Formats: sequence, structure tokens, C-alpha cells
Amino acid sequence: MKLTLVGAGPGDPELITLKGIKALKQADVVMYDALVHPDLLDYCRPDALKVYVGKRRGAYSCVQEEINPLIVHYAQQYGHVVRLKGGDSFVFGRGYEELDFARRHGIDVDVVPGLSSSYAVPASAGIPLTTRGLSESFWVVTGTTKDGKFSQDLRLAAQSTATVVILMGMHKLPEIMDVFAALGKNDTPVAIVQNGTLPEQQVVIGQVDTMVDVVAETGVGNPAIIVIGEVARLGNPTILSAVQQATFATGL
Amino acid sequence: MKLTLVGAGPGDPELITLKGIKALKQADVVMYDALVHPDLLDYCRPDALKVYVGKRRGAYSCVQEEINPLIVHYAQQYGHVVRLKGGDSFVFGRGYEELDFARRHGIDVDVVPGLSSSYAVPASAGIPLTTRGLSESFWVVTGTTKDGKFSQDLRLAAQSTATVVILMGMHKLPEIMDVFAALGKNDTPVAIVQNGTLPEQQVVIGQVDTMVDVVAETGVGNPAIIVIGEVARLGNPTILSAVQQATFATGL
Repeated sequence: MKLTLVGAGPGDPELITLKGIKALKQADVVMYDALVHPDLLDYCRPDALKVYVGKRRGAYSCVQEEINPLIVHYAQQYGHVVRLKGGDSFVFGRGYEELDFARRHGIDVDVVPGLSSSYAVPASAGIPLTTRGLSESFWVVTGTTKDGKFSQDLRLAAQSTATVVILMGMHKLPEIMDVFAALGKNDTPVAIVQNGTLPEQQVVIGQVDTMVDVVAETGVGNPAIIVIGEVARLGNPTILSAVQQATFATGL
Repeated sequence: MKLTLVGAGPGDPELITLKGIKALKQADVVMYDALVHPDLLDYCRPDALKVYVGKRRGAYSCVQEEINPLIVHYAQQYGHVVRLKGGDSFVFGRGYEELDFARRHGIDVDVVPGLSSSYAVPASAGIPLTTRGLSESFWVVTGTTKDGKFSQDLRLAAQSTATVVILMGMHKLPEIMDVFAALGKNDTPVAIVQNGTLPEQQVVIGQVDTMVDVVAETGVGNPAIIVIGEVARLGNPTILSAVQQATFATGL
């Protein structure tokens, strides 16, 4: 009985690791999420059981408690379960909970890390999370915490020179921008990348005081990643809204 | 003329992406760093030129200025240059500088992200950077900034609930521990992972007020990653020093 957590990466099916593919080829059962690219299932053995346990924000918290015992069930019934998750399993992936639950039920566990969207999606938009002279650290937070509020750490991060990356934060965008604005950071660049690393990727770039309008005008939405900090201006926008053109005209 | 930055991942040669391998197979020239696993060069074409431009901490800052024009030289001379770097090129990899320099010289550029050691190495030691109830964000800082000091962001990070990950920080370990101790965080768990994801990986776990002694006793050293925060206690240590056993005995 074995559970291998495999990170599928940020979207592009070629951004999975060799080790992840090897695990998929060995699996008796593959349990996969909504954000996993369907092409990755082609690596499975023809006789492997493929189980969709998709969850998106909203249905999020109620489903995890059903996934944990399912993993144990399939491992006991079939042998080697691969749990294929978008991004990396240990970066807001709740992978540790699954691993811990399985281990407590006597199942061997292994982890194959995946490319986390937190930096791979900005990279796909041309944005390095760190670069000399602009940012010497980065800080990754989720917009969706257990209690539904965003992390109070955001206020500390906003005071630093860190590039701030927010996953699952689009529904809190106005509140997040307010935190930075309250620190006088109205003109700090902000980038939002939707469907990162996929052919339908969209990138908008604005700044703290314009970003809510840019989003309203361009219609950019989930799944998306928010990058706040000087490095965001290095990105390659795919949509230039009127608001954004005005921003560029002011010298962003 | 083309430059493709490829992240080689944290050490284990199976932790490169499919896309990274494809780029290596197409390259006319591969310029690689010291921390890149030698097996990855087997993907190169037999006629590809392989150029070692290794740099380790110490020789670090003086060599970058030589690498940039070398990339341009090889692209102009041979066509497609793959720049193969440990971890990810855009996470403290100075990849953006290389890309920007090449682009200014009329060279097409592309980026293939790699697994960043910042989370893949902790994962290899069993440590998730985030997990419900222990940490809802993570902050990645380098111990080696441009001016030789560690980032002032560390003081802000130390005040947060974020898991703090420090790359290239072993030579500053006492100062880093002092920052946390000054905030009353003496008993915050700390993990150090040396040679992460490789067969010779070593993991030591202690806490803020014991870690300098643990390192002295166990001899754990570079290349290593420091993880500070409650999640560090979830790691699987490979060396149990006397200091560390005492730490465990006190209930860490």
C-alpha cells in the first residue's frame, strides 16, 4: 500500500517532472483534481483506475474530508495510489493532510514535488519574483484562509521589499489593494495572470490604485495569480485596457 | 539566435521538467552551473557545445558580468543557447539579468521554470511550507544580498506567522537566529537540509536557540536550506545530535 503525492505543475502538461511521470506510469489508481491537465492522464497504465476528485474554490472545504478516506480505501483495495494535484502538493495543496492521514492508516507515503504556480506563473508572464535592485525576497500567501479572512501577515509583507504573491485572492482584490494603499503604496506595480502557462494565458498589469478598475474593465478572473511589487512592471501584458494605458502613460 | 533559461531543479536529475529536457535536446550550446546534476547533460545532442560556467558562493558576484556577454557570444556564434541553472532561474537565479542582457542584444528569449529548492528541498525532508493550523504563508529570503548583508525583510518576516525559508544563509546562521530570538521566538522549530533531494541528503532539526550548536555538532553545511517555523518540526531528521536529542526531550 502506497500513496505518492505528485505535483502536476501550473497548467502546461510539459511542466510536470520526469519523476512525476514515472509515478503516474506505476500507479494502480490516480486521483486527480480539477486543475490537472487532462493530457497527463495519458501516462497512466490502461488498466489504472482514474478517479476525479475535483474541487474548486467554494466547494473547497467540504470535500477534503471525503478525499482523505478515499485515498486509504483505494490504497487498501488496489495498492499504489497517485494523488495528482495542480501546482505543488505542499504549497497550499493540503497534501500534508492527505499524507498524514494515509500514514496513520499504515500506508507508505512519498512526495514528488511539482512546479508551484506561485513563481512559475509569474515567470510565464516574464516576471521574476526576485531580481537585483528590485526585490530581494518573495512572500506567498493565499487569499482563502481557513476562517475566510486573508492573512494578517499581509500587512507585514506590504511593509517589506518582498514581492508579494497571492494565490486564490481575486475575490479579495479590493481589500488587498487597500492594505498597500494604506501604506502609501498607490503606485506599486501589480500584475494579474489568468490561466498561467496555458495557451489561453492572459496578463494584465496596473498598479495598486488602478488594479480593481483594470480587472473590471478587462474581465480577467480565476484561476489567477496576483503579483505585487516592483518586479510586476517587468511582465508582458496581453491586454491593454484604457485604464492600463493611462497607467503606462504616467510612466509605470 | 535564441536563449532559453532552463531550471534544472533542486538536485535530483529526475526533478527536471519535460519541457526542460526538450530544450536541452534542441540546444546548440548548453551553459551550465556548478549545482546542475551531470546526468542532465546526457540529454544534449552529441554535437552540442557544453560550457561550464560554474559559480558558487564566494566567486559569485565577480563572475556574472562575464556570463552575460558569453551568452550573447555563443548565441551569435552557434544559434540556440540553453542556460541550465540549479533550481529555478527566476528565484535568486539572476536569470532575469541574463535574459534582459540577451534581449537587448537582439536575441529571442524564453524561460522554462524549474523546481525551486525553496519548497522542493523542504518537501524532500517531509516539510510542507504551508499546512492548515501551522502556517498559512511562506517567505523566501536569501542570506546573501548584493551588499553582503542579509535582507532587512527578515525582521518583518520573523514577526509574521509565515514559514521563513532562507537560501544561501548558512554563513549568517547565528545572526539569523538572533533576529528570531530577539522577538522571543527561542523555541520556534528550525530545520536545515543539506544536499536536498540527492542520495546524500542530510536533515537536522532543532530550534532557534539550539540550532547554531546543532550545526556545529553535526557538521551540516552548504549547500543547505534553512526553514524556520512550526512546520519545521514535521521534518524527518537524518542526524540526531546530542543537542537535538535534548531538544526533542523537552518536547519539540
